[in-house]
Amino acid sequence: MQTRSEETRANILQAALTLFARLGYEAASVEDICAEAGVSKGAFYHHFPTKQAVFLQLLHDWLDGLDAQFAQARQGAENAAQIFMRMTAAVPGIFRDADQRLPMFLEFWAQASRDEAVWQTTIAPYRRYRDYFASLIEQGVAEGVFRPVEPQAAARLIVALAVGMLLQGLLDPQEDDWQAITTESLKIMMNGLAAQKE
Amino acid sequence: MQTRSEETRANILQAALTLFARLGYEAASVEDICAEAGVSKGAFYHHFPTKQAVFLQLLHDWLDGLDAQFAQARQGAENAAQIFMRMTAAVPGIFRDADQRLPMFLEFWAQASRDEAVWQTTIAPYRRYRDYFASLIEQGVAEGVFRPVEPQAAARLIVALAVGMLLQGLLDPQEDDWQAITTESLKIMMNGLAAQKE
Repeated sequence: MQTRSEETRANILQAALTLFARLGYEAASVEDICAEAGVSKGAFYHHFPTKQAVFLQLLHDWLDGLDAQFAQARQGAENAAQIFMRMTAAVPGIFRDADQRLPMFLEFWAQASRDEAVWQTTIAPYRRYRDYFASLIEQGVAEGVFRPVEPQAAARLIVALAVGMLLQGLLDPQEDDWQAITTESLKIMMNGLAAQKE
Repeated sequence: MQTRSEETRANILQAALTLFARLGYEAASVEDICAEAGVSKGAFYHHFPTKQAVFLQLLHDWLDGLDAQFAQARQGAENAAQIFMRMTAAVPGIFRDADQRLPMFLEFWAQASRDEAVWQTTIAPYRRYRDYFASLIEQGVAEGVFRPVEPQAAARLIVALAVGMLLQGLLDPQEDDWQAITTESLKIMMNGLAAQKE
């Protein structure tokens, strides 16, 4: 059962998510978040020292969800190529979860290029995913299922594909079946990685 | 020779570019831009109705540069695969030009998901590039140099790669040789597109 305090915390996070999406991270104030959540400023600052701390919690929660899906993709897979193909099963969920969060991530990403503190908190998960994909590529090359590509370049290609597809889905959500398009794009990329048959 | 008025206009654009990069699009005010450019507010509003109009001009100028490079890549190329490989020659220039502009594009992209007017001005060049790449893919499939991939999905893959690489380069500029990595990534993608040899 959620305690009263846990409930307040969850309400603040949900209100922040809603307002960051509606107004933008910069424009949404702590006052706005308190009003939306129906909590006092005292309650807010009991749980979070700053608006940025709320943002970082939302980021962590989202990444935790991604990590769990990636771990699941890895379980019982025979090789790196299979792990990648299983990850595509996570695509619909990733698009659904990203929908509300993506605009504020973009603003944050823009801030990261100007603000050392924001940069530090953005770079760590970015590098973690990048290195995770690089190790998967390396595994696939060793297993002989991938061509002898440069793992660091291939990992950046995968991150680029993920980020770039989410951005396009955000900008043009109505036009396309983004799940189908991302699955098709992953297939093209996998063809580029796949070891050529003798 | 630049007239006085043209010079003022150019100064405003350069000052806006500098301040959008340094402070962010939202935080940089018309007053800031006037101070940086050394012009009066009257002069500013003579040339641009709003801060957003300055942004849009910067966007247009950047896209014009991209268009010129793409047109050059097309000249005298034998087939679609060759056009793509020539485009990679434009990568260093694209990274250099994007450097100052990218954070404000991110903020704008985030706004586009919330603001109909911003969305309208963002979606047009996005769709233009996407459709340009789709037509190139279609050409390559017809020429037999590409696999029979879905042109719309492949075009989104290319846009994703371009946007995703620029974003990573922006976030982590020191760590990597982004030109080499993008060239290597394009090769992997081209392998995924290339018709298989019989």
